Amino acid sequence: MSKLRFMTAGESHGPQLTAILEGIPAGVKIDKETIDEDLFRRQQGYGRGGRMKIESDKVEIVSGVRFGETIGSPITLVVKNRDWQNWQERMAVFGEPKGDKVTAVRPGHADLVGVIKYNRSDARDILERSSARETTMRVAVGGVCKAFLKACGITITSKVIKIGGVVDDFEAMKAKIDEAKTKGDTLGGVFEVTVKGVPVGLGSHIQWDRKLDAKLAMAMMSIQAIKGVEIGAGFECANLFGSQVHDEIFYDEETNKIYRQTNRAGGVEGGMSNGEDIVIRAVMKPIPTLMTPLKSIDLETKKQVLACKERSDTCAVEAAAVVGEAMTAFVIAQAMVDRFGGDSLTDIKQS
Amino acid sequence: MSKLRFMTAGESHGPQLTAILEGIPAGVKIDKETIDEDLFRRQQGYGRGGRMKIESDKVEIVSGVRFGETIGSPITLVVKNRDWQNWQERMAVFGEPKGDKVTAVRPGHADLVGVIKYNRSDARDILERSSARETTMRVAVGGVCKAFLKACGITITSKVIKIGGVVDDFEAMKAKIDEAKTKGDTLGGVFEVTVKGVPVGLGSHIQWDRKLDAKLAMAMMSIQAIKGVEIGAGFECANLFGSQVHDEIFYDEETNKIYRQTNRAGGVEGGMSNGEDIVIRAVMKPIPTLMTPLKSIDLETKKQVLACKERSDTCAVEAAAVVGEAMTAFVIAQAMVDRFGGDSLTDIKQS
Amino acid sequence: MSKLRFMTAGESHGPQLTAILEGIPAGVKIDKETIDEDLFRRQQGYGRGGRMKIESDKVEIVSGVRFGETIGSPITLVVKNRDWQNWQERMAVFGEPKGDKVTAVRPGHADLVGVIKYNRSDARDILERSSARETTMRVAVGGVCKAFLKACGITITSKVIKIGGVVDDFEAMKAKIDEAKTKGDTLGGVFEVTVKGVPVGLGSHIQWDRKLDAKLAMAMMSIQAIKGVEIGAGFECANLFGSQVHDEIFYDEETNKIYRQTNRAGGVEGGMSNGEDIVIRAVMKPIPTLMTPLKSIDLETKKQVLACKERSDTCAVEAAAVVGEAMTAFVIAQAMVDRFGGDSLTDIKQS
Amino acid sequence: MSKLRFMTAGESHGPQLTAILEGIPAGVKIDKETIDEDLFRRQQGYGRGGRMKIESDKVEIVSGVRFGETIGSPITLVVKNRDWQNWQERMAVFGEPKGDKVTAVRPGHADLVGVIKYNRSDARDILERSSARETTMRVAVGGVCKAFLKACGITITSKVIKIGGVVDDFEAMKAKIDEAKTKGDTLGGVFEVTVKGVPVGLGSHIQWDRKLDAKLAMAMMSIQAIKGVEIGAGFECANLFGSQVHDEIFYDEETNKIYRQTNRAGGVEGGMSNGEDIVIRAVMKPIPTLMTPLKSIDLETKKQVLACKERSDTCAVEAAAVVGEAMTAFVIAQAMVDRFGGDSLTDIKQS
Repeated sequence: MSKLRFMTAGESHGPQLTAILEGIPAGVKIDKETIDEDLFRRQQGYGRGGRMKIESDKVEIVSGVRFGETIGSPITLVVKNRDWQNWQERMAVFGEPKGDKVTAVRPGHADLVGVIKYNRSDARDILERSSARETTMRVAVGGVCKAFLKACGITITSKVIKIGGVVDDFEAMKAKIDEAKTKGDTLGGVFEVTVKGVPVGLGSHIQWDRKLDAKLAMAMMSIQAIKGVEIGAGFECANLFGSQVHDEIFYDEETNKIYRQTNRAGGVEGGMSNGEDIVIRAVMKPIPTLMTPLKSIDLETKKQVLACKERSDTCAVEAAAVVGEAMTAFVIAQAMVDRFGGDSLTDIKQS
Repeated sequence: MSKLRFMTAGESHGPQLTAILEGIPAGVKIDKETIDEDLFRRQQGYGRGGRMKIESDKVEIVSGVRFGETIGSPITLVVKNRDWQNWQERMAVFGEPKGDKVTAVRPGHADLVGVIKYNRSDARDILERSSARETTMRVAVGGVCKAFLKACGITITSKVIKIGGVVDDFEAMKAKIDEAKTKGDTLGGVFEVTVKGVPVGLGSHIQWDRKLDAKLAMAMMSIQAIKGVEIGAGFECANLFGSQVHDEIFYDEETNKIYRQTNRAGGVEGGMSNGEDIVIRAVMKPIPTLMTPLKSIDLETKKQVLACKERSDTCAVEAAAVVGEAMTAFVIAQAMVDRFGGDSLTDIKQS
Repeated sequence: MSKLRFMTAGESHGPQLTAILEGIPAGVKIDKETIDEDLFRRQQGYGRGGRMKIESDKVEIVSGVRFGETIGSPITLVVKNRDWQNWQERMAVFGEPKGDKVTAVRPGHADLVGVIKYNRSDARDILERSSARETTMRVAVGGVCKAFLKACGITITSKVIKIGGVVDDFEAMKAKIDEAKTKGDTLGGVFEVTVKGVPVGLGSHIQWDRKLDAKLAMAMMSIQAIKGVEIGAGFECANLFGSQVHDEIFYDEETNKIYRQTNRAGGVEGGMSNGEDIVIRAVMKPIPTLMTPLKSIDLETKKQVLACKERSDTCAVEAAAVVGEAMTAFVIAQAMVDRFGGDSLTDIKQS
Repeated sequence: MSKLRFMTAGESHGPQLTAILEGIPAGVKIDKETIDEDLFRRQQGYGRGGRMKIESDKVEIVSGVRFGETIGSPITLVVKNRDWQNWQERMAVFGEPKGDKVTAVRPGHADLVGVIKYNRSDARDILERSSARETTMRVAVGGVCKAFLKACGITITSKVIKIGGVVDDFEAMKAKIDEAKTKGDTLGGVFEVTVKGVPVGLGSHIQWDRKLDAKLAMAMMSIQAIKGVEIGAGFECANLFGSQVHDEIFYDEETNKIYRQTNRAGGVEGGMSNGEDIVIRAVMKPIPTLMTPLKSIDLETKKQVLACKERSDTCAVEAAAVVGEAMTAFVIAQAMVDRFGGDSLTDIKQS
């Protein structure tokens, strides 16, 4: 396995969410406030519903960082659930089952499939983990990765570029979200993540599972509700001639630098970073929990019912964009460590 | 790691291409002709150039199959290069370097980046491996996976749906390819892969790197020249309301079956197969080697030059679709083995 | 990767130790008391020193278990450090460094090597993680694995069989430990782990990294201070003829069962469980922190010094045996899931 | 996964054995003769039987090496079976089954367990892959790894230290082997592998599956017939006091070097290389195929029979030692790449 890896754990309404992140080089300065800022950004965005007010996630670091600096050992990140006292019976770790089962499975969610796969009778056993709440920890993990990348001169940003068919015009996007909210409906959209300062040669062309673009695609598609991902010109490539797509290569004698005038490749050629900005976009489907619920069935009675209403956001593309940043940060950080080794930040900077 | 894994090896003009595929259950009937048919399909398609005539790939199986049946051990697949005698000097394994170096690196290829990363002076050391020729072995691997899946009632097909902006109309697509060829230019497009007969619950919602859609995205994006991938409604999700996107759930009393009337999810919900057809699309960029070459630089002299011309296809989307089938077959086969265990086909069929 | 995996995190004197365990099938009953019992056993044993009195580890489960049963999602296990208030300055996550650096690196420990590898100036940054305290979480992880295995009819036990050259005689072992303690010296020894009820065919012969004995060896050698591992007749095989080593195979017509009269293979043939008890032994070196310290150097001054004294146990082989049980439980549980699939306990029981 | 990985494939009497090795840095000089020498050494040794005369393995490299140097891409290694014409019917890839089934399963082999696990009726489907013949490819893989290590100043050697209870005295060992041969019996023994020139800090203390000693143990135990492994003082640690075991640390002012006067740790402390020689020993059980066969059963009839005689070696510890070198080379090479990154040999040498 790669030196850099992470796992997240925790149910949406359980006592806490946890992540263990391993392989960040020693000597990286960690700043809790910057991570909390990303956690805050994940909770915001026009179109978010009620639960957002309760939360206000703060990360606790309980291993792997000492005196504000990574020491090479695994980093444990914890976000406590502020709402736990309201859920401790229904989500109790031990004791007899309490509270109603969720049996009106929601279309577009893991509910039905998960119940079959894991042989459960209460869809809560599935939905608590499949919830986008899990991405909280990805953002925390991404925050640590970003700190490492920043020390290497690499920065990652994101923006929403489409909501409900509206492109770029933020006021029109908001109006569209208001319209959806009024209808009890939901909206999806597209966000774009950009990585600047990437060295040449992250990833590799030599095997299918070493390619940087393949890993980015996996990371992005793994985010809840993402249904598509594209790099650089992406799907537009299907409409253009080769001469319109590829980025010609130039050399500047004065600076002794190779450069391009365009970046339609989105920073990746042959499965490797080419030194240009990495540009990746992902599409999020509308949130599947509608206030005007969809038709579904009840798992116990098999009767037709309306799907249950677990959450009440109208649109969460801004939040997804923050998660997209985080997952991109992880993939790039992993590729950095794979390329340059790096048990300490000093090692990598000298490479 | 998963029980099912594979690696490919081999340079485009080397003596042979090789793959080792491990973890296919014992007892699966293997039919060389069916694999060769897929290899043939990969070589065909309107818009392919000269090299295709030389080749005519045939698979040799040299381990893991006995009397036409898998026995559980790793399967070695070999495709010999029919053109090897013309290349044995330039691609000699041992001996002094012969033949000219490739230094006019091609935009859109791994050439430049690979040379920097691996510290080479001859771009041939890179392009021989980054070439789409490598996908030959993925098709062979996919052929074995398909045989396993077929025995489980799962089938995989593909089709080209867009070329150079033309959708669905094959005559117009061909005209577009002819136009490109005349110009010395190239074209990309979109293909779609469909999987039928998928059981419920492949993949998992529990961790980012267990999700079936994430794995499909990685597999697809790992194919040479692919710049985007989408599942089900894909990027169209950014234009629709939630009520237009999610697939309502119904129950048929007579057959005692849960079903959907729509499949906008493309067969995956919550990172798991939901029993509907899996539908995945990928976009291929135009081939980067143009007969009217792009501007580039020479690695040695740093002078502006025209990129070298290694191949001469105009469009290879049909070939990519066959590779897309193969990679999808691998991911689904892997998910089957992960879900049902299965050291022998009998085990899996009984699950 | 395999479906079953875990990571531990946490420093010896940090606020808490954490583990995330993923892939335990849904539906396994979890009993906190049984895990705590193993944690207690790990802390006991003749020859343990002062710190043991402070601790008294208790596991908290904060994800993956609901109403006393696994639900398929990752299980987070936490053991709080009871002594944290005494260490919160020296081990503070944020803020200015406080307390003396450890620079008198201890022979036999990770101290010196770790400081070089991770480019640290304070050996505490290394020793806090390399400490055997980390195995606390392995015992907790093993406790969950054992619960799963028990539900499948598989049990795991261990015993100490040698201490400081004394074999089997516990009173003589204790006397030897007393002798070492008096001298300010330490002792190692050998323990044996036995697994009963193992089904045939865990592991595989088909590839080096699929072999059950290889995985057991890795798991055992990964325990702090372990320097050797053997299965069945082990090193004694070097003294015997083949006819004295191999276990002949018999068939009992009445029960329709294949059986052996001996188990010199220790339950593994050809990299696979053969249905007999798995018997594995490991040797632990004496604890490297001596009360009569060894010669070493100071990292800053390079002067010859006596190594620092971080802990004060005389012998910890009993504790290591409990960790050995845990790691064995993990490997066997992983092999069960690999062989039988198993997203729920019901699936596996039906296999 | 790590950048360095390999898989082997091929049946003992199939047309060829194959390995794919990926992740060796570009720029390593490869010398076919040196690999063939190791292949030859694997086939020799006092106590080998008839088949050895037929073989005489030669490696063919069919990818990843150009003009005698690695280019970064996967390396395909092939060893053809010189005896294939005698086996092509019994081991035919396609066509109707020919030749007798093997049903008299051999104690100490994978035969019985494999047949059950993979649901086969002919033990040949198992024994062809479980055979130690597979280690041929590990030796070839190890040969390439050794070439890489040698370029980094690291060398690996091995020696037999015990056969059938006889230690170090080679004439007495031979006599013991002669005795065994006369009886139709077999012998095992112990070999030792030594690695010189290892840099400090390969492996890591931070997680159980990152430890260098754990990986070495896995690699060694994965070799056919190995039943135990130990590092440095190994099992002798159970007989000694801590003051007799740990290697004190000294500093030499003149050379500005830290050093030890002893190496009872065998070069590994805290899961990391400490710069001293790595010393690892493994025990091989006597070959399970006896000319005076053991009792067993017939799979079809369930009658008591004598086990079949597939091979006729008396002792193969010298061969196992060569495989031990190879697996050690792989683990050390992997740890080098993990520590220093290294896409090209130049990168690693500059680290």
